[in-house]
Amino acid sequence: MSAEVPATALQLLSLVKADQTVQLFLDTVEVPEPGPGEVVVRVEASPINPSDLGLLLAGADVTAAVSGGPADRPVVTAPLPDAAMRAMTARVGIPMPVGNEGAGTVVAAGSSAAARALLGKTVALAGGGMYAQYRCLDTSLCLELPEGTPAVDGASSFVNPMTVLGMVETMRMENHQALAHTAAASNLGQMLNRLCIKDQVPLVNIVRRDEQEQLLRSAGATYVCNSASPAFLDELTAALTATGATLAFDAIGGGKLASQILTCMEAAASAVAGSYSRYGSAVHKQVYIYGSLDRGPTELTRNYGMAWGIGGWLLTPFLQKIGLDGMIRLRRRVAAELTTTFASSYTDQVSLAGALQLDAIAAYSRQATGSKYLIIPSR
Amino acid sequence: MSAEVPATALQLLSLVKADQTVQLFLDTVEVPEPGPGEVVVRVEASPINPSDLGLLLAGADVTAAVSGGPADRPVVTAPLPDAAMRAMTARVGIPMPVGNEGAGTVVAAGSSAAARALLGKTVALAGGGMYAQYRCLDTSLCLELPEGTPAVDGASSFVNPMTVLGMVETMRMENHQALAHTAAASNLGQMLNRLCIKDQVPLVNIVRRDEQEQLLRSAGATYVCNSASPAFLDELTAALTATGATLAFDAIGGGKLASQILTCMEAAASAVAGSYSRYGSAVHKQVYIYGSLDRGPTELTRNYGMAWGIGGWLLTPFLQKIGLDGMIRLRRRVAAELTTTFASSYTDQVSLAGALQLDAIAAYSRQATGSKYLIIPSR
Repeated sequence: MSAEVPATALQLLSLVKADQTVQLFLDTVEVPEPGPGEVVVRVEASPINPSDLGLLLAGADVTAAVSGGPADRPVVTAPLPDAAMRAMTARVGIPMPVGNEGAGTVVAAGSSAAARALLGKTVALAGGGMYAQYRCLDTSLCLELPEGTPAVDGASSFVNPMTVLGMVETMRMENHQALAHTAAASNLGQMLNRLCIKDQVPLVNIVRRDEQEQLLRSAGATYVCNSASPAFLDELTAALTATGATLAFDAIGGGKLASQILTCMEAAASAVAGSYSRYGSAVHKQVYIYGSLDRGPTELTRNYGMAWGIGGWLLTPFLQKIGLDGMIRLRRRVAAELTTTFASSYTDQVSLAGALQLDAIAAYSRQATGSKYLIIPSR
Repeated sequence: MSAEVPATALQLLSLVKADQTVQLFLDTVEVPEPGPGEVVVRVEASPINPSDLGLLLAGADVTAAVSGGPADRPVVTAPLPDAAMRAMTARVGIPMPVGNEGAGTVVAAGSSAAARALLGKTVALAGGGMYAQYRCLDTSLCLELPEGTPAVDGASSFVNPMTVLGMVETMRMENHQALAHTAAASNLGQMLNRLCIKDQVPLVNIVRRDEQEQLLRSAGATYVCNSASPAFLDELTAALTATGATLAFDAIGGGKLASQILTCMEAAASAVAGSYSRYGSAVHKQVYIYGSLDRGPTELTRNYGMAWGIGGWLLTPFLQKIGLDGMIRLRRRVAAELTTTFASSYTDQVSLAGALQLDAIAAYSRQATGSKYLIIPSR
């Protein structure tokens, strides 16, 4: 192994304990020797995505979190509500590495040609456990970034880019013509907006505040519906009629919005269909829930005929569906458009210890629009 | 046309009026000459299915129905709630024939060989407008019944038999191994129970009363879960674990039951899967809502990971999916097992005018388990 790789390094861990708390802390772990097809990457940047929070925080009540330990090794403890604890029984007592994606420099390589070819390169990473100073992983989980790309620019090249590409691919695979999207001013939503403009896919953006509407319109969005508008349902129906969108991706989950989207899709479909059918239109209307900004129950009024569906959508099963070829095709596109279509920006950069400051946890657990944290493990 | 076919005959019609009422009445209509591929059938029996009620009653408040007209030509008027009226705008002012299925004797035939071959035969019918003394329709909508089958035995040979066959076919097409079913003591539920026993498909029957549980157990059901039991969720989880059922058909629609089924399916899948996944099990869990005994909203708690779906299920799109060959195969099976697997029984037989008596409407609109009306149009 190269002399610049230390024997041990820091890693962030999340541990659910039998006393119904979660403990977040940094541990010193061994940096492994890479196997033949593996490389060791010095992680230089890793984002805190909404999809990391479930594993990191375990559904804990972060408003009741307390912090101990020295400043460079904080130990945060937060209580789990009963429902969260029931869902976490399988991970009690097992410290879990966290961090879906990141980017960094390959500092050691196994014996295979593929591994050795990456030595010294900047790569984007997927595969979990990225909130760490070093990560050893299979070369298939590394995406070589174009020469000269800083690691910060490649840190978010997997989750959000592959998710928005997955949404558009799902639209095509399931024979829809256009998309609707909720919480559309999020980092992911802005990226989807850029992708749809570039690929000429009509997109109905649904937001809940004026400034979010302005943000998307100034980014070139044609259809933006504000759920706070008194005429929201009429405006949404008009946008769905204009675009023909019969597929929506919903980041919110709880409440009535998913059902309202189906109601407005049915109104749009019936306006076209013309004659009465007791079972509603024959047009299939689909909402996929991919996030849970509102953890409350989803309420379906079912006033949209019988041709409708709602369900969970997750990146991993989608990638399994399109297979390795499909995944390579999408990742190549991400690499080529990393600083344009698939660019991410961050409001805060923190060290591993900084990610465990109580004020930082309070901020990123809110998942507020526009706020995004990036961990720089070397700090 | 044959001398035994009258020039005019009675038909039951349902008319939504602009004054926000529905009017149900009998009209004298012309019996048409059959086209080349058509036959005229004297309708001798036609059931009132739950799936007929939406078209017949238009969502009216039947507790406020009033009746006028002579005894043999009653005219029933009932008010529509606002929500029902909004859903019925496309049929205002258009008298709608009602009755999805029935059976009778072919009394006139068009010039094609297929039509002439049916002359004098007893046939089961699908295609709407069966609450009538005569019905002219294409031969493809007729199923010739085995020699000697009374029309009463063939009256319900389409909707319920094809629906239960459709449920089992859907299970196979979507790669599930077993089924769950709600309102399982209904006429349709009892039929599904017989079909699953015969085809060795594990079936979890969900009911809400002790006598319904007894009814199904005495009909040979292995798994019956009573939602009124204090241990219902544990019992349902155990039955879903034992059968491996990851697909449910739900006749109820509103409330929490569909979501509870998904929760218990996830508990069953997680018990097998073993290790923790932050996104829940990878096993896809599906509920199809095919009825709406509870018209209230469906409430989804989404505590079952991301691999789940819920949606509407309707016989017609299913039949389109399997194509003409598939449909013929299923209909042949229905004809062969019409008095065994696919037998229906009726608690009441009424004339066309009798179907418009207020007490009859009150009874069949309740959709109580075990109660089923058959219309005999010649009475």
